[in-house]
Amino acid sequence: MASSPRSGPPTRRWRSPTIGAGWRERERGWRRMSVARVLVFAGGDPNPPEALAGLPPGTLVVAADSGAAHALAAGRRVDVLVGDLDSLDEATLAEVVAAGAEVRRHPAAKDATDLALALDVALELGAEAVTMVGGHGGRLDHLLANVALLAADAYAGVEVDARLGPARLSVVRGRRSLVGRPGELLSLLPVGGPAGGVTTEGLLFPLRDATLRPGTTWGVSNQFTDEPAAVQVAEGVLVAVAPGERGSL
Amino acid sequence: MASSPRSGPPTRRWRSPTIGAGWRERERGWRRMSVARVLVFAGGDPNPPEALAGLPPGTLVVAADSGAAHALAAGRRVDVLVGDLDSLDEATLAEVVAAGAEVRRHPAAKDATDLALALDVALELGAEAVTMVGGHGGRLDHLLANVALLAADAYAGVEVDARLGPARLSVVRGRRSLVGRPGELLSLLPVGGPAGGVTTEGLLFPLRDATLRPGTTWGVSNQFTDEPAAVQVAEGVLVAVAPGERGSL
Repeated sequence: MASSPRSGPPTRRWRSPTIGAGWRERERGWRRMSVARVLVFAGGDPNPPEALAGLPPGTLVVAADSGAAHALAAGRRVDVLVGDLDSLDEATLAEVVAAGAEVRRHPAAKDATDLALALDVALELGAEAVTMVGGHGGRLDHLLANVALLAADAYAGVEVDARLGPARLSVVRGRRSLVGRPGELLSLLPVGGPAGGVTTEGLLFPLRDATLRPGTTWGVSNQFTDEPAAVQVAEGVLVAVAPGERGSL
Repeated sequence: MASSPRSGPPTRRWRSPTIGAGWRERERGWRRMSVARVLVFAGGDPNPPEALAGLPPGTLVVAADSGAAHALAAGRRVDVLVGDLDSLDEATLAEVVAAGAEVRRHPAAKDATDLALALDVALELGAEAVTMVGGHGGRLDHLLANVALLAADAYAGVEVDARLGPARLSVVRGRRSLVGRPGELLSLLPVGGPAGGVTTEGLLFPLRDATLRPGTTWGVSNQFTDEPAAVQVAEGVLVAVAPGERGSL
């Protein structure tokens, strides 16, 4: 990831020519498949194996730069590789290309992070749901930017989930059904402003038409009592974070 | 940290009786000292030693629960220990008490996190500036809640900085001067809503009256060119994050 010289909001993103044969044909094929869920493998540290359990099979995979290596390590084929490719080793790149991935290489000096580019590809492919895998570890600024990005309005039309290290994260707009074992921790955190009309089902500390404001820690350390639980938000956006069993990011 | 049963916003925080002799006298003494900066040691993983370099000496120290152990490991005396003390070992508690710390034990079922309680103690002590040390590692939900908490309106009157693992974080309201080596990365991320009128000095990619919206990654990976740099915000709140040399949280 890198940034470009800038003195005002970016107006247009540089688009690379696509590399690889048959892109248009395959894209049309994907669109015909009515892509339900796209897995986006981000960079950062690899997820622990147990955090990859339950990922939907047969899903279209978009890799952000070194996320391609994580996808391969998880036994997934990469369909689209996007980013400036400044953190991907040559061997992985060659393997991904040989397996037929579409490669969209962007210049290092750009206004979007590799993850943002990958999420935009998922949108272009008509994704109705996105699960990001990775995106944790490494730099604190990347982690914070990634979480804010997942909750951004640009992806309001998509159901967004993530596996960050041992944690599972779900972006909640409207109503989401959430899966967790009884007793498992779940924290509800507002993103980008207050979240109003928050109502929960199946959590130990029920909320009824509550308002969660940025910086309040009041939604931290709730617990699943039923599976699935449900969280509803009338205004604003929440991230629901199940931190997972392991004690460390 | 734990949560209480709740069906609406908390109205009042439970206050424990203080434990330890001479609290009132010492508190008056501190107030006379016109406390400029309070160090708040949070729980989570300990910071790497290099991240503790340059912490101001002779500063009043408030520890949130197991943050007390981090304070002792960093060679600091704890002045106030606050929290439910569910993650602090008995030996550390005994050492802190023996050294004269004021202990404010709260029930485990509470609406505030230990860090929130610690920051409130700093406010009570009349802090003009707070540096949080720790608060990273462990649970993703804690980390996200901690960052949002540092940027909360409740602490708008205090200059807030943090050392989270290898990263340095500064909350920017109005104008802040920031120290970093030329070439060092610095990301500017809006918190709790858009940040408007963002203007920078001494950064590679200058911003002039820019608006940074939640979820945009446009402020990521700027760089120091001069020391000190400065960041100014007309509306809203930013966190400025220097991720540090090490690649891992």
